[in-house]
Amino acid sequence: MGISPQSDFLRALYQSWSDRMAANPGLTIADLRSLFDEWHQPTLEPEGVTYKSARLSGIDAIWTLPEGANTEQVILYTHGGGFAVGSTDSHRKLVGHLAKQLGVTAVVIDYRRAPEHPFPAQIEDSTAVYKELLARGFKPADIITSGDSAGGNLAISTVLKLRQDGVALPAAVIAFSPWLDMEHVGKTLQTNAATDALVSKAVLEGMSGMFLGEKGSRTDPLANPLKADFRGFPRLYINAGAVETLLDNAQDLARIAKAAGVDVTLSVVDGMQHVFPFLAGRAPEADDELRRIAQWFKRS
Amino acid sequence: MGISPQSDFLRALYQSWSDRMAANPGLTIADLRSLFDEWHQPTLEPEGVTYKSARLSGIDAIWTLPEGANTEQVILYTHGGGFAVGSTDSHRKLVGHLAKQLGVTAVVIDYRRAPEHPFPAQIEDSTAVYKELLARGFKPADIITSGDSAGGNLAISTVLKLRQDGVALPAAVIAFSPWLDMEHVGKTLQTNAATDALVSKAVLEGMSGMFLGEKGSRTDPLANPLKADFRGFPRLYINAGAVETLLDNAQDLARIAKAAGVDVTLSVVDGMQHVFPFLAGRAPEADDELRRIAQWFKRS
Repeated sequence: MGISPQSDFLRALYQSWSDRMAANPGLTIADLRSLFDEWHQPTLEPEGVTYKSARLSGIDAIWTLPEGANTEQVILYTHGGGFAVGSTDSHRKLVGHLAKQLGVTAVVIDYRRAPEHPFPAQIEDSTAVYKELLARGFKPADIITSGDSAGGNLAISTVLKLRQDGVALPAAVIAFSPWLDMEHVGKTLQTNAATDALVSKAVLEGMSGMFLGEKGSRTDPLANPLKADFRGFPRLYINAGAVETLLDNAQDLARIAKAAGVDVTLSVVDGMQHVFPFLAGRAPEADDELRRIAQWFKRS
Repeated sequence: MGISPQSDFLRALYQSWSDRMAANPGLTIADLRSLFDEWHQPTLEPEGVTYKSARLSGIDAIWTLPEGANTEQVILYTHGGGFAVGSTDSHRKLVGHLAKQLGVTAVVIDYRRAPEHPFPAQIEDSTAVYKELLARGFKPADIITSGDSAGGNLAISTVLKLRQDGVALPAAVIAFSPWLDMEHVGKTLQTNAATDALVSKAVLEGMSGMFLGEKGSRTDPLANPLKADFRGFPRLYINAGAVETLLDNAQDLARIAKAAGVDVTLSVVDGMQHVFPFLAGRAPEADDELRRIAQWFKRS
């Protein structure tokens, strides 16, 4: 089955980033953050969605409010970018599409980023926002955690941390192309190296080094959920692109969670790059995937 | 009179750009475009505004649709960035605030940028979109052209070109900190050099070189509206920050247009940097200015 011509926009964007990073090794973390904020470009504006800048527990955030959404339900969204780059702004439109498809509201948070703030600052922020949502009257059964790449890791590790803290868990978790393997031992890191236009072992090593700093462990279940006990975990939707280097992170997570009795749905889409739902509004593969997620969500 | 602490966000952002550009002379035009897309950061999300990605006359654009706006009235917005950087995305929120205050819709356009596309590609695109708006049923009396910095120049030069082409002119023009002087002879280039955190003669020389290319003239009225005949021009609102190097571009424009009989309002705000309305939602100086523009607009 061929892939849509529109979906090449994401591959071409990733290739341009890889080329620019290779051409200019002097790019600072500030420059890299500017570059990765282009992540919003593949996503067209979701229509009928309004936004509101906010602070929750001292953390900057954007409320994503689809017209007619159930305002009692909310997605707590943690953006991707290796824990170091990416922002509410790179992900606003993606989250707008997701929230609109699910018929719920969403809050995208600017958690503290590495290297200035290594592990576990990110989880401290996401769990603080979760507790703030509870304090504002949201019920756990009306909260979904979601994220992509490193933010997919956070969508999961946030729940693991809440369980550890004895806090009531959210109803569901949605992870797009989650990056979980902090040891960089996944096989698809090699087998998909030629087809993934962005994520390489070298890039991940740089990111995990900033994230874990001097004290973090590559096998801490809160940093590397492939090492976690998933018993009692909420139902879980995981997706990935078939040509990405992080493919087996998604597959391994599905296997481990299923073995622990979790209700898991895994969707791997042919020919797609890392976090292909960024193509929402532009390419059918992304819109079809978001519709599948909505169907999965509504069967609850 | 002191300036608000919140307004320092824009100065600090500009200073960070100046520092990063100085520290890394290897930044390419792609890197500079990423950097300037941070321009959206000072602006908080305007509430109650939805967006729609679109193409008009082959040009990518974002419709900005405040809830309850008069959908027969539209702002054609040309973003700033020296004709080379800036985008619909850097300016979406600013235009959302402006449209909401005026109670109208807006379309922000991704006109072709220099150096790949020198003068007059930008005016060709903006006039094509204006004509497309007419073809879609908008009346000239319901159209406002607006823009900031180089886009403020375009908001004006578009109208000069339409007049040349015998097309009915828009009702009003709003220019934020317009950059008009392609000869770089304005006195505030020197006198405000120490207080403007971004715009220097060196930066402008780089930008005008890319814009004019090998064939453009620094005194062509369509490139440098300070050389234009303003007789019959629509009513015009101009603003600027008192500490910016382009201050006298705004003042000179007001003087020249007034002398030609144009209904001109000039607003210069103490202590403010280049295009200070980017602080909309964050700093009172920007919100106050947008309210003044709305009052001016509604007295028509």
